[in-house]
Amino acid sequence: MKNVRVVSYGIGVIGRRLANYLLDKVGIDIVGAIDINPAIVGKDLGEVLGRDKIGVLISDDVDGVLSELKPDIVCHTTMSYLRQTYDQFAQILSHGLNCVSTCEELSYPSATKEGSEYAGRLDNLAKKNGVTLLGTGINPGFLMDTLPIVLTGVCKSVEDIYITRQMDAATRRIPFQKKIGAGLSLEEFEAKIKTHEITGHVGLEQSIQMIADAVGWELSEIKVDPVGSVILDHDVASDAIKVPKGYNAGSKQKAYGMKDGKALITMDFRAYIGAPEEFDSVTIHGEPPINERTSPCVHGDFGTIAITTNMIPQVINASPGLVTMKDLPPPHATMAHMRKYIK
Amino acid sequence: MKNVRVVSYGIGVIGRRLANYLLDKVGIDIVGAIDINPAIVGKDLGEVLGRDKIGVLISDDVDGVLSELKPDIVCHTTMSYLRQTYDQFAQILSHGLNCVSTCEELSYPSATKEGSEYAGRLDNLAKKNGVTLLGTGINPGFLMDTLPIVLTGVCKSVEDIYITRQMDAATRRIPFQKKIGAGLSLEEFEAKIKTHEITGHVGLEQSIQMIADAVGWELSEIKVDPVGSVILDHDVASDAIKVPKGYNAGSKQKAYGMKDGKALITMDFRAYIGAPEEFDSVTIHGEPPINERTSPCVHGDFGTIAITTNMIPQVINASPGLVTMKDLPPPHATMAHMRKYIK
Repeated sequence: MKNVRVVSYGIGVIGRRLANYLLDKVGIDIVGAIDINPAIVGKDLGEVLGRDKIGVLISDDVDGVLSELKPDIVCHTTMSYLRQTYDQFAQILSHGLNCVSTCEELSYPSATKEGSEYAGRLDNLAKKNGVTLLGTGINPGFLMDTLPIVLTGVCKSVEDIYITRQMDAATRRIPFQKKIGAGLSLEEFEAKIKTHEITGHVGLEQSIQMIADAVGWELSEIKVDPVGSVILDHDVASDAIKVPKGYNAGSKQKAYGMKDGKALITMDFRAYIGAPEEFDSVTIHGEPPINERTSPCVHGDFGTIAITTNMIPQVINASPGLVTMKDLPPPHATMAHMRKYIK
Repeated sequence: MKNVRVVSYGIGVIGRRLANYLLDKVGIDIVGAIDINPAIVGKDLGEVLGRDKIGVLISDDVDGVLSELKPDIVCHTTMSYLRQTYDQFAQILSHGLNCVSTCEELSYPSATKEGSEYAGRLDNLAKKNGVTLLGTGINPGFLMDTLPIVLTGVCKSVEDIYITRQMDAATRRIPFQKKIGAGLSLEEFEAKIKTHEITGHVGLEQSIQMIADAVGWELSEIKVDPVGSVILDHDVASDAIKVPKGYNAGSKQKAYGMKDGKALITMDFRAYIGAPEEFDSVTIHGEPPINERTSPCVHGDFGTIAITTNMIPQVINASPGLVTMKDLPPPHATMAHMRKYIK
């Protein structure tokens, strides 16, 4: 069986973890690597990953790499918003290439007006070129959208859905702990929110809209609360950061899919050092009711790498266009040679 | 929007519950009903369901109903094994009609040699007639196959999967309590197993094979333990059945997907009066590990009715052939007009 040929587009934190995984995977070859970071352009991808050389040099010449290598799929991990990534996707699609991306907004672009416009253009471009584009990841992409949607599949009726993800930030990488403002005073935390150094979770609107469209609810509004601080009444600490009592341990955020003044869908996202339990939960008030919980919560980085890779066959097999997780056959682990899953 | 036109094929226990639900559903019309039970043939379906007449008479003339009504889909709920249902499906497909069925063996026919042969013929027939056939339900169809498969989607690797369904039979209908031998002495229980009056759960092999094929494991063997008794050291009772200490409270059964002498997939099914907790759980040893639990367990009859209905759009939208839950876009509740989900 011929290996599936992949170009890794984006060799940042997630891109490196993804590339490392792809290199160990049976039935996948990374044939090209793209990044704009001058510190790594021209270097061997294997070496940048701390492995043996693999003979693939990281390039910033996107057109050159894509036209020369003609991969089966591009695995894209650069940025979170379509205003940052639209041109990149347009370029990939114009080369007649399939693409799976961790761009959060791509997971369900029609959640916002701006995203809908990008989505329309990307869908046209994908169809014109006979290829498929998917945004996925652990969240958005799975825990707070695909999984709750699947769980509603055994419901005769659904009144509302409440989804929680609670993470103990002490178990995550240090940049993540800083991103959520752990260890800051309340004043520092609030200042960093004003300057957008702390932005909260990207994808809550996308997850809400994906669920609403899957279930068939026409929402009147999606409300996203501002990012909030988490102040505990006792000291907590990770290996890297001490959080004295009264200081900020992390962040929390809620978002709501509203109809007639009622929250049909609620997202409750909490990440802080010292969280008493790590879990993901889905509570569906309906017939029958569903109380589902995964404990500990699924590790974000590992989960994102896994699902991005595991969706490669579904993207290659799909009809052309911009697709979302609710449109494709369900995700699954890929323990066999990757070609085995491709029609 | 035009309502989706359904023929209900099978007006037994599940068929009645399903028909009752379909009649209340927005965007669905039951246009015909089929059963062979002389006690209800010729009667109005609504009346048999204890509702007002709906102008649909239950008929035993399958060819007549199907050729005259040309429904969008047939909802089929007659029996568990393909040797009992094959001719029914062949007839439905030959009329150029889509079909969704609760036939357990149809959920993944290739799990057995006999089933594979039926599957090949049904797939050909469906393709020849340009229609789609799906077997689904709560179990097999969701809890012990589709849901675990979806959960592996966030795993980089999977070592093994352990799936448990534990039900307190006291909460279920009386025929179910009798089916699992509640209230019998151990001798009576064992005698009824010998005479096949107690048969255990149908679908464990199908669920195991569906998971194995989705994940990409080539199993050497599927082992199904004999149905076992559940003898408690205290008295228990449902509203209908008393189970003195030392008598049988229900049944339990395990099945294993084996490779190289190791169980990669284990199904652990327990249904008895007095079970201390009702739950469905999926434990995946892998990277990352997944410990998922739904408590209380999803109600079997409600869940089967729901998912059978909720999959109608996916079946109508699918490419022709015999399909399984792992091949179609994921299930979801259908709270809008059913036509809205159909392409």
